[in-house]
Amino acid sequence: MATLLELDDPADPRLRDYRDLRDVELRKSLEGEEGLFLAEGEKVVRRALEAGFTARSFLMAPRWLDGLADLLDRSAAPCFVLPEALIEQVTGFHVHRGALASLHRRPLPGVDEVLDRARSVLVLEDVVDHTNVGAIFRCGAALGFDAVLLAPRCADPLYRRAVKVAMGTVFSVPWTRLPDWYDALPDLSSRGFTTVALTLADDARPVEEAVAGLDRVALVLGSEGHGLSSRWEQSADRRAVIPMAAGVDSLNVAAATAVACYVASRR
Amino acid sequence: MATLLELDDPADPRLRDYRDLRDVELRKSLEGEEGLFLAEGEKVVRRALEAGFTARSFLMAPRWLDGLADLLDRSAAPCFVLPEALIEQVTGFHVHRGALASLHRRPLPGVDEVLDRARSVLVLEDVVDHTNVGAIFRCGAALGFDAVLLAPRCADPLYRRAVKVAMGTVFSVPWTRLPDWYDALPDLSSRGFTTVALTLADDARPVEEAVAGLDRVALVLGSEGHGLSSRWEQSADRRAVIPMAAGVDSLNVAAATAVACYVASRR
Repeated sequence: MATLLELDDPADPRLRDYRDLRDVELRKSLEGEEGLFLAEGEKVVRRALEAGFTARSFLMAPRWLDGLADLLDRSAAPCFVLPEALIEQVTGFHVHRGALASLHRRPLPGVDEVLDRARSVLVLEDVVDHTNVGAIFRCGAALGFDAVLLAPRCADPLYRRAVKVAMGTVFSVPWTRLPDWYDALPDLSSRGFTTVALTLADDARPVEEAVAGLDRVALVLGSEGHGLSSRWEQSADRRAVIPMAAGVDSLNVAAATAVACYVASRR
Repeated sequence: MATLLELDDPADPRLRDYRDLRDVELRKSLEGEEGLFLAEGEKVVRRALEAGFTARSFLMAPRWLDGLADLLDRSAAPCFVLPEALIEQVTGFHVHRGALASLHRRPLPGVDEVLDRARSVLVLEDVVDHTNVGAIFRCGAALGFDAVLLAPRCADPLYRRAVKVAMGTVFSVPWTRLPDWYDALPDLSSRGFTTVALTLADDARPVEEAVAGLDRVALVLGSEGHGLSSRWEQSADRRAVIPMAAGVDSLNVAAATAVACYVASRR
């Protein structure tokens, strides 16, 4: 059972895991070095623990204790209890959904394990915005995708903002980093996937046509700013586009993923 | 031609339009009372002016002047020029894309005007998140929707964050507020639109089937938290759902809109 520790000093060193949550650079180095990630909100904390992650600690205001009592009962980690105003001083902003947990990261699985029995896969090249990464996971989970593969520079799915936007689906959808950027797509092809790159390239065909009748599909998505690298665009088996109205730049990558996942889910 | 005014005091009262951009409540009252809105980034500022909005003023660091020189040439508004560090003191955060403009709002058009010749319309009930409102506009514009109607409590499409996420499509897609919440959907039906509410209701049918073969369609979307009000859900002509994987709550409203707009664009 978690030990409840009522604290009254926001500078208490035991609260280090929860400091300055909006300072992206600080958080990246802290979370990487310590091998931790944060879950925010009762529902997301619950999903992290149910997915088998182990808590380092919890932090919440008194009114959130009841809702998480069953989880705290089953955890050996300390639960720091502070008034909301002091929590805000630690985290640097008002945590709307109250409860926070700091959890241990686990080693990432290998590509073989993630792709085992997968039929529909998302492959993200350099999606750098945590909100987009989270939205893409939520969307893939909702529309029946089995796995997500990330290029080395793609943003971290376990970053707090990504976890929150994903509504915890980053815990349930298998994912990992690709070890080799250059040959990532040919490697997927050799494993029996048809790689379909979403792009505005001239030879792209409508996405519905590009995925029609395929068995194993890997939908490939590029960065918010400039899309896919030319290497990935060219090494994909097919290039696909979502037909759009004239004069509009494009859909945002999360919206494009939603459409492409929907279309692929009905192939 | 815009007058360039080099300022060195972030407290200068002429910079009032740009103050504390992350303080949502302050911005709402300031922008409402003054009848202004902000555009951020060269591309979005350009689109606002090209759509016929009149600038009250501009604010930028020296390095952004060249890119907007043609627009400044054609405007009578003052352009305040400050070093980036001082701009950050005014706005309360680092403005990544440099240029800002404060523009005059215009009276909202009537529903008749917005719906004139429209065939595909989005109707938002209480979407309260500015990011979602912006994403929905961008998506509607990209997928050929002709107009957007907003319930009284829906978030403001001209709020800075919505404008930015929408990539300025809030300037080009006709939109207005619905004067009457209660009978909004029956009124659209009487104008010849089939109102299709996205919902998880038991009698919802797959969205593809719900829009098949329709001429004038109004896609109806509800709040992030609890979806549509029962009045709107029940007074829509049809209820539609995006088929999803078991165990996932739902798609976020922006992702659901992307899928529904795509499906409706191919009806």
